Amino acid sequence: MSEQHATQARWGADYVQAISPYVGGKPIAEVARQFGLQPERIVKLASNENPLGMSPKAREAILAAMADSTRYPDNDGYALKQALASKLSVPAEWITLGHGSSDLLEMAARALLTDADAGMYSRYSFIVYTQAVQGVGATHQIVPDRDFGHDLPAMLAAITPQTKLIFVANPNNPTGTFLPADELLDFLRKVPPHIAVVLDEAYVEYIEPALRYDSMAWVREFPNLIVSRTFSKAYGLAGLRMGYGVSQPALTDVLNRVRSAFNTSTLGQAAALAALDDLAFIDQAYAVNRAGQAQLAAAFEALGLRYIPSQGNFILVKVGDDAKAGARLNLALLQRGVIARPVDNYGLPQWLRISVGTEAENATCIAALRDHYAAS
Amino acid sequence: MSEQHATQARWGADYVQAISPYVGGKPIAEVARQFGLQPERIVKLASNENPLGMSPKAREAILAAMADSTRYPDNDGYALKQALASKLSVPAEWITLGHGSSDLLEMAARALLTDADAGMYSRYSFIVYTQAVQGVGATHQIVPDRDFGHDLPAMLAAITPQTKLIFVANPNNPTGTFLPADELLDFLRKVPPHIAVVLDEAYVEYIEPALRYDSMAWVREFPNLIVSRTFSKAYGLAGLRMGYGVSQPALTDVLNRVRSAFNTSTLGQAAALAALDDLAFIDQAYAVNRAGQAQLAAAFEALGLRYIPSQGNFILVKVGDDAKAGARLNLALLQRGVIARPVDNYGLPQWLRISVGTEAENATCIAALRDHYAAS
Repeated sequence: MSEQHATQARWGADYVQAISPYVGGKPIAEVARQFGLQPERIVKLASNENPLGMSPKAREAILAAMADSTRYPDNDGYALKQALASKLSVPAEWITLGHGSSDLLEMAARALLTDADAGMYSRYSFIVYTQAVQGVGATHQIVPDRDFGHDLPAMLAAITPQTKLIFVANPNNPTGTFLPADELLDFLRKVPPHIAVVLDEAYVEYIEPALRYDSMAWVREFPNLIVSRTFSKAYGLAGLRMGYGVSQPALTDVLNRVRSAFNTSTLGQAAALAALDDLAFIDQAYAVNRAGQAQLAAAFEALGLRYIPSQGNFILVKVGDDAKAGARLNLALLQRGVIARPVDNYGLPQWLRISVGTEAENATCIAALRDHYAAS
Repeated sequence: MSEQHATQARWGADYVQAISPYVGGKPIAEVARQFGLQPERIVKLASNENPLGMSPKAREAILAAMADSTRYPDNDGYALKQALASKLSVPAEWITLGHGSSDLLEMAARALLTDADAGMYSRYSFIVYTQAVQGVGATHQIVPDRDFGHDLPAMLAAITPQTKLIFVANPNNPTGTFLPADELLDFLRKVPPHIAVVLDEAYVEYIEPALRYDSMAWVREFPNLIVSRTFSKAYGLAGLRMGYGVSQPALTDVLNRVRSAFNTSTLGQAAALAALDDLAFIDQAYAVNRAGQAQLAAAFEALGLRYIPSQGNFILVKVGDDAKAGARLNLALLQRGVIARPVDNYGLPQWLRISVGTEAENATCIAALRDHYAAS
């Protein structure tokens, strides 16, 4: 190394250096390596994936699209947008395809926030909101939760002239809390129209029928609303990275200006298109999730563990009273081949987030929990 | 729509509004729709894809990884980084995986440029450099070309205190020009060490053996260098969106801070890993490209068309003297089922960029060219 080119220790602006990279659920292969376990005996309940896998129709579509994978994807996602438009009763021009819905969250921040602006979100909400705001050097407006969920009146009260973008998740991750439709609608009516709202509906398919609402009608009513959804959860396509946003043309225009070229893959587009059609698969995913929630909740109650009732496909459970409780139980579960999700990076070190699996996966997790508490 | 929520016509900062979204090569399905052609009779020579498709090993790897696609990808890309590190003789910690190598270009801009900085690139170089610089609101420093390629002394002379990032492509796209190793090394030695250089090697596998150089040795020497590469070209995996960057730890650290979570897919990682091993496939891609270049060049000469000798898998050819020549020929080729690439958005409206296909694809293109010039 020449004198001239001595190592520069730090690159980039301070706000870049301050980004904490995303820490996802541990992959099965990594846990197998680290703990010397057989991959096929590991149960992963860490990333809110669909324990049923993906629709067979999606699998067939991937096979059929393989030969096309040598070509660049359709950058406009014509076929998938047409299908989404038809399903959602919105124009195809209102849809922005994303590399997962987190891509939409980041696009919204890049399109709508500069380092002179502020982005708002609730405490205990999806950590990608934090990263998206941080990634453009904007100011964070983090509003305290109300019972682990969004406090919408407090969010309205926290709006300042700097505020340009508000993230709201419903259901919320990692807590599973839910905002009734009337509260959300009231909020949307009160947000000043120059401030964009991202309504993150990653878990929308898991909401119980009595609580569901028509957010597409809200997109038609509010030009400042972006609804984001994903194929990573109920549709079981997490590895293919597909999501989308729906918004009126002016907002959709700027999202697509900051969208990376070819941000969704050929196989992802094909799988998502096929998966959209398989309504029976989504019904089954819903039913398995409700049954699994009841199974896990009963076990938590038997163990005397507090948990937050969830409208998602996961449950946040309080696993102890000290600040190391989550990390301790997480390690104990890993040693027993169960991958759960620590949430200390969400400021919840006494809790774990456990995804709902199949009946057998849940039973393995419950047995490991009983083992741990019996031994401690 | 309520009075309060009247449509806001423009969202986002002026620099966002000024982004021109990427216009890729037209997909075969789109051309088939627009021109009423049968997709299987269309020849796409628009996006520098590999006409041989992908390695059979990559195809097998996709099949094997399909079941894993319900899970989130490995966000760290452990297996692929290990394989790349071994192949390139660099530590795995020096590698950043990208959603195509354009993801690396955008990560470099987001990590290293703010709206107070400037990013530099050559005229007639890859348009994603423009978009990456524009996407963070930074100043563009566009240095005039030398014979359609980079003028490295002029780029050095253009450096200002604002300059924080320089893009250099070798071979260059869309012109196919090549910088000899000694000129590049001299340039790297003269760039001040606080300015990062991205050396974009998307087409590195197509360089003729006598001209090749060891850019990994340069990464070891220069802490301000990022070498980016892709699986979209010679490896034939464009639809799977896989690329990577190699740089020393301090630069790699900030790239990974701005990297989106799960930016590469499960199937993409699996396919890239398998494709890396198939050296015979890359050799074949190289040979087919050289033969195709000779075939196209002979036809251009016979038609009296000027072209730029290329070290890539494409040729830039001057198709007429007026400012509509490229658009006119492009339309004529589309009507004959041949998709080439207009380059008017590069400031080259008299030219087309034609990817090198198989012998039969090239012959179809040449026949269409002859038809057009015979009729005009």
